[in-house]
Amino acid sequence: MIAAQYIGNKSFEIVAANERSPEADEVKIAVGYVGICGTDMHIYHGVMDQRVAPPKTIGHEMSGTIVEVGSDVKNHKVGERVVVRPLDWCGECPTCEAGYTHICQNLKFMGIDSPGAFQKHWTVKERTLHKLPATVDLKQGALIEPLSVACHDISRSRLKAGEKAVVIGGGPIGQLVALVAKSVGADVLISEVNEARREFAKNIGIESVNPLETDLEAYVSEWTGTKGADVVFEVSGVQPAIEAMTQIAGRRGRLVMVAIHSQQPKVDMFQFFWKELELLGARVYEAADFDMAIDLIASGKVDINPFISSINQLENIGQAFASMDNNPQGMKALVACNEE
Amino acid sequence: MIAAQYIGNKSFEIVAANERSPEADEVKIAVGYVGICGTDMHIYHGVMDQRVAPPKTIGHEMSGTIVEVGSDVKNHKVGERVVVRPLDWCGECPTCEAGYTHICQNLKFMGIDSPGAFQKHWTVKERTLHKLPATVDLKQGALIEPLSVACHDISRSRLKAGEKAVVIGGGPIGQLVALVAKSVGADVLISEVNEARREFAKNIGIESVNPLETDLEAYVSEWTGTKGADVVFEVSGVQPAIEAMTQIAGRRGRLVMVAIHSQQPKVDMFQFFWKELELLGARVYEAADFDMAIDLIASGKVDINPFISSINQLENIGQAFASMDNNPQGMKALVACNEE
Ligand SMILES: [Zn+2]
Ligand SMILES: [Zn+2]
Ligand SMILES: [Zn+2]
Ligand SMILES: [Zn+2]
Repeated sequence: MIAAQYIGNKSFEIVAANERSPEADEVKIAVGYVGICGTDMHIYHGVMDQRVAPPKTIGHEMSGTIVEVGSDVKNHKVGERVVVRPLDWCGECPTCEAGYTHICQNLKFMGIDSPGAFQKHWTVKERTLHKLPATVDLKQGALIEPLSVACHDISRSRLKAGEKAVVIGGGPIGQLVALVAKSVGADVLISEVNEARREFAKNIGIESVNPLETDLEAYVSEWTGTKGADVVFEVSGVQPAIEAMTQIAGRRGRLVMVAIHSQQPKVDMFQFFWKELELLGARVYEAADFDMAIDLIASGKVDINPFISSINQLENIGQAFASMDNNPQGMKALVACNEE
Repeated sequence: MIAAQYIGNKSFEIVAANERSPEADEVKIAVGYVGICGTDMHIYHGVMDQRVAPPKTIGHEMSGTIVEVGSDVKNHKVGERVVVRPLDWCGECPTCEAGYTHICQNLKFMGIDSPGAFQKHWTVKERTLHKLPATVDLKQGALIEPLSVACHDISRSRLKAGEKAVVIGGGPIGQLVALVAKSVGADVLISEVNEARREFAKNIGIESVNPLETDLEAYVSEWTGTKGADVVFEVSGVQPAIEAMTQIAGRRGRLVMVAIHSQQPKVDMFQFFWKELELLGARVYEAADFDMAIDLIASGKVDINPFISSINQLENIGQAFASMDNNPQGMKALVACNEE
């Protein structure tokens, strides 16, 4: 079979690779589609070379069909269409024992710390699998992983129907967070400076404002009848968003930290005290978030199709990555590894 | 009767004042003891003159005996020993309607925004009262308010028996937080640079470390078997504490922001994401926190007596404030307004 290997310096090589037969607790999957996410772009730009250690097959937002199962596999069978929750946890640390395997102290992320899905066949542990219902196709399946990130953010926020939520940052994850927030019955507003992204939001039925043109604090105050936002999702990773989040949140407001801030921002801690705000970090997803994401697509509550901006064959993976670089408005580029 | 008036510039004046008769929903209290807290010291130093507008009678950590009741007062009677929860909320804003009257959008703090307790008689709304049981004397009663702050911090943290909590900062509130944490069955450690405060902690049975001498992160890691602290209370208000709190907290750790940070500190937001930390602002108290504080003293679960470092008569209030300035190790100076 063939596999794409990231070899450093914005480059991939298509190589002939041996298919790995499944161990007792593993399955081998014929990969359908793999999405390119922000982390993959970081790897592509070389900033994670030390952790990734190229040459390495990356990719973790995927769907596929089981073609072989190990001897101990009980709940999945050949021919089944699945997605992989790409987390490899130790099962033994205090965090795993407390049930939070997704933030295991020894967590390995599949497709970064171990080989990923940009290949014809991928062999993974059975415990990572979620079955796709007939109403979700393999292209949509490749969007389950980022949608699960959004479901986890909503779950962390305890967002309820009738509440008002602001999403700061309208990239792919921000837009998905907005859609999931809407699906639970909340009123949603995206704050985003980029016009193309505001246009995207409009097309999927989400209201947005440009915080460079509109006074966000005044806007939210009026929108909420002086109460302030019940929930704010920080998905942008910039200092002005950190300032905005404490301003626009109402008393007892919940702020969810989705973005990765590599710099330490200045935070208005006085507002945390004064308004009894709550800040919740959110990282990847739990099994229930994958179940929710699959259900949202299967039930039609979330239309994921507008997020697919291009599809390239595995052999042309370099073009797929380059297209994301050249079209930052594109939401999700898919790579087809085996056509359906 | 006489009242003490703060007249600006670290000065008080003892004046003859009219006793205010209670309105229908009010009671008049013969004040027993009033504690001096950090906020009172701020006022004394002149930094809050604009909000306080001297001359003003301040003071809010008090106990006393009801001497007169208004016509609509139903649940309290003359002769009853009480403490006042010194909050004046509007009852009409969205926050009050949601039940969070203690962070009302129009909250007035009695003794800062309206006259306080440093006088022989204080007239207040019945809804602010909590009855003292026979086992709590009026000196102890003056400590109910700061102990309620600590109870509120514990309540916000959801601290459970068997969990490990670190309190950063060993001033009066930090020490009270540690005692309340211990009373719910948690293991507690205070981080404090001042030796006299560490000595105080030792005397009330609380373990402490000096973070300038001991590597706090390594210490907590070993103390918790690599798990990290379940809960961290930030009670110090300094930047190094903000750095320490994200380091020593374990995955899904809860951080409670008790201190007032007037500068915006730099916060390691990456740790919030990576460990799914939770930051909870905590301000003043709710009615249930006063009930808990009274019960902790009445039941003997918390011995509050070591916190009383001096008692001065109302006429000598200037000396009481000066003694706090000159003895920063003192925990709580009381002012006696009417002897028991
Ligand atoms: Zn991803
Ligand atoms: Zn683990
Ligand atoms: Zn106070
Ligand atoms: Zn109110």
